[in-house]
Amino acid sequence: MSHDPRLTPLIAALPATVPFVGIETLERQTGVTIKARIGANESGFGPSPRAIEAMSRTAAEAWKYPDAECFHLRHELAQHHGVGAENIVIGAGIDGLLGTLVRLTVAPGYKVVTSKGAYPTFSYHVAGSGGELVTVPYRDDHEDPEGLIAQMHAVRPKLVYISNPDNPMGSWHDASAIQRMIEAIPEGTLLVLDEAYFECADPSLFPPLDTSDKRVIRMRTFSKAYGLAGARIGYAIGDAEMIAQFSKIRDHFGVSIIGQEGARAALADQDWLHKVRAQIAGSRDRIAEIAAENGLSPLPSQTNFVAIDLGRDGDFTRAMVRELHMARIFVRMPGVAPLDRCLRVSCGTEADMDLFAQELPGALQRAQT
Amino acid sequence: MSHDPRLTPLIAALPATVPFVGIETLERQTGVTIKARIGANESGFGPSPRAIEAMSRTAAEAWKYPDAECFHLRHELAQHHGVGAENIVIGAGIDGLLGTLVRLTVAPGYKVVTSKGAYPTFSYHVAGSGGELVTVPYRDDHEDPEGLIAQMHAVRPKLVYISNPDNPMGSWHDASAIQRMIEAIPEGTLLVLDEAYFECADPSLFPPLDTSDKRVIRMRTFSKAYGLAGARIGYAIGDAEMIAQFSKIRDHFGVSIIGQEGARAALADQDWLHKVRAQIAGSRDRIAEIAAENGLSPLPSQTNFVAIDLGRDGDFTRAMVRELHMARIFVRMPGVAPLDRCLRVSCGTEADMDLFAQELPGALQRAQT
Repeated sequence: MSHDPRLTPLIAALPATVPFVGIETLERQTGVTIKARIGANESGFGPSPRAIEAMSRTAAEAWKYPDAECFHLRHELAQHHGVGAENIVIGAGIDGLLGTLVRLTVAPGYKVVTSKGAYPTFSYHVAGSGGELVTVPYRDDHEDPEGLIAQMHAVRPKLVYISNPDNPMGSWHDASAIQRMIEAIPEGTLLVLDEAYFECADPSLFPPLDTSDKRVIRMRTFSKAYGLAGARIGYAIGDAEMIAQFSKIRDHFGVSIIGQEGARAALADQDWLHKVRAQIAGSRDRIAEIAAENGLSPLPSQTNFVAIDLGRDGDFTRAMVRELHMARIFVRMPGVAPLDRCLRVSCGTEADMDLFAQELPGALQRAQT
Repeated sequence: MSHDPRLTPLIAALPATVPFVGIETLERQTGVTIKARIGANESGFGPSPRAIEAMSRTAAEAWKYPDAECFHLRHELAQHHGVGAENIVIGAGIDGLLGTLVRLTVAPGYKVVTSKGAYPTFSYHVAGSGGELVTVPYRDDHEDPEGLIAQMHAVRPKLVYISNPDNPMGSWHDASAIQRMIEAIPEGTLLVLDEAYFECADPSLFPPLDTSDKRVIRMRTFSKAYGLAGARIGYAIGDAEMIAQFSKIRDHFGVSIIGQEGARAALADQDWLHKVRAQIAGSRDRIAEIAAENGLSPLPSQTNFVAIDLGRDGDFTRAMVRELHMARIFVRMPGVAPLDRCLRVSCGTEADMDLFAQELPGALQRAQT
C-alpha cells in the first residue's frame, strides 16, 4: 500500500480519530450554545480566587519563557506530598505526561494492558507509539485488578494502566487492592496509576506514596478539583530514576508561566479546595437525586461526576447525549458496552443542576421515541 | 549492557542533556539574580496590553478545558496569512510542534539534515525519535542552502531543517535562495522552514505561502516579537494533508485557554507589533553600537538579537557569558565552533541596554585574565 512518503509507516497507518471531541467543536457542529457545561469533568466551581489573581498578575510576565524546571511548583508539591522534588515532574496536564511516559516505555509491538473502556487518551498515546493494547473488561462497573494482574502475567506488558477512582464510571478500589496490584508487578512492567480525581475522593483509596518503589508511577492534576483544566498543569510522582527520564524527551519549556503560577496559588489555597470538595460531594448527591426522581440508577462515585445507569443500550445513551445537548446541556458517556448504558454527568453549580433537573425528563421522553 | 528494563532501548541510550539550561536554573546555580534578561530572545518590550488584558480576563475561565481545535485563533491566523484554516495547526510553541513533526516523520535510523550549530531543540527531538543527524557546516556565519541541498541529495533525509532568519547567528537568505531549496527537495523529504523571527525581519526573506506545496512546512510563533514566550503558542503552516497528520498524535487539549486568548488579542493588535518591530530595530542598532565601542564586531541581524563576534574562541565566549551573568546580565552563545566566537545578545529595553553598555568593558577585561 502506498502512503504519504513523508510519514513513518506507523503514522501513515494510524487512524485520524481523536480521543475526545471538544465541547466547542460540538457547539460549532450543532449551532447550539451550551449553558450547563457538565460533560468534561471540569470544575464549574472555578479555581481559587487566589489562583485567578496569580494568573492575572502573571499575564504581564508572559514575555518570559517559563522556568523549564517548574522549580517552585515542583518543590511546593514535593513538600505538600512529603516526597522529594526529584520524584516529581510537571507537565502540561496528565494527557501530556501520559504521552511522554508512553514514549519512554513503549516501542512498536510492545504490549500494554488497560481496561476496555478506560481513559481513551492513554490508549491514543499507546497507539501513537505503536504499542499493542491488551484490554481487560470492567467487572460490575469497576476496573478489575485481578483481571489486570492475570493479563499482566500472561503478556508481560511494558505498562499497565488503572485509574482510581475510575473514569468514566466513578467507581473505586481501596488502597489495599491497589497495593496488591503493585506487589504483583513483574520486572520490566510499570503500573500507571492515574489519580486525576485524587482530591475528590476519600484518602483510604490511596496507598501511601513510596518513591523508592520502581513499579508504579502516579498521575495527578490541577484540572479537576483545583479547577485549572484550561491552564494545563499535571504532574507525575515516581522513583527519581524514572522521573529523570522524562527530561530526555519532554518539552522543557512547555509548561506555561501563567499555569505554573496559577497552580502554585491553587495549591497554597487548601481552604478553597476543601470548600470545592464539599461542593462536589453536594453536587454528586444532587445528580443522584435527579437521577432517582427520573427512575434511573446513579452509580456511587468518588470523583467529580456521576455515571447514571439509564438501563438501556449505548444507542439510547447516545440519543440522550444528543437530546441534552439540544437542551443546552453538555454531558458525555462511556465509549464501550456495557458501560455505555450510562450517562456521565459532571458535578456543577446549582444553576447547572437546576437546568439538568428541568431538562432530563423531556430528554428521556424524546430519546425513547 | 543492562539498562532500566522499564525503558525502551532508544530511551535508555539517550543522554540526559537538555537543549537549553533555563535562566532560572542558572540563577539558582549561581545565586545571582538577573537584571537584564537578554539571552533567550524573549521580547523585553512585552506583549500587547490587549493581550495582557485578554489573558487576565481569561484567567477566571481557566476551569474550562481549552478548545482542542484552537478554532478562533486558527481561523484568525488563516485570515491574517491568507491561507486556509486547514493549513494551520497550533501547538504549545514551535518546540512542541517540532517534537510532533519529528514523531510524524522520523523513525529510528531515519536521516535528518540540519546545520551544525543550528537550533538544538530540533536536534534534541530528532535524537528522541532515534533519527540520525547529518550536519552541514555554516558558511560565513550563514546556514548554507547549497550545502544542505547537496547533503539532501546525498542522504535522502526525511527532514531538512533551516531557520530563516537564522538562530543563533541572526543571518538570513532572501526568498529566492529559500525557494531554490524548496525546488530541490526530493520526494519523501520535507523542508522544515523555521521562521520564528518572521515578524522581526524584512518581508523579502520569505517566499509566498503556498499551501499546495507538500515539500515544505513553516513554523511561526508568538514567543518572539509578539512577546508571549511564557504563554506557549506557536503554529505550523503547511499542506492540509500534513497538517491533518498532527491530530493523529498531538496533545489535543494541550494549548492553554489563556494562551489562545492572549495570542488572538496579540494578533489583533498589529499596531503594537509594528511598534515592537521599531523597538527591536532600534535595540539591534544599540547592541551593534555598544559592540563597536568595545572594539567588537556585531553581525548583521534580522532577528530580535545580535551575534557579536568577540574575535576569540569558544572558551573566551563562555568566560564572557559567565562574567556577564555575574554582572546580572543573561546572554547566550552558539554551541559549536566557529560560531561560538560570538556572544548572542537579545534586544531589550533601554535599561537592559544601558546595563549591558556599562558592564561589557569590565566583563571583557575580566574574561581576558
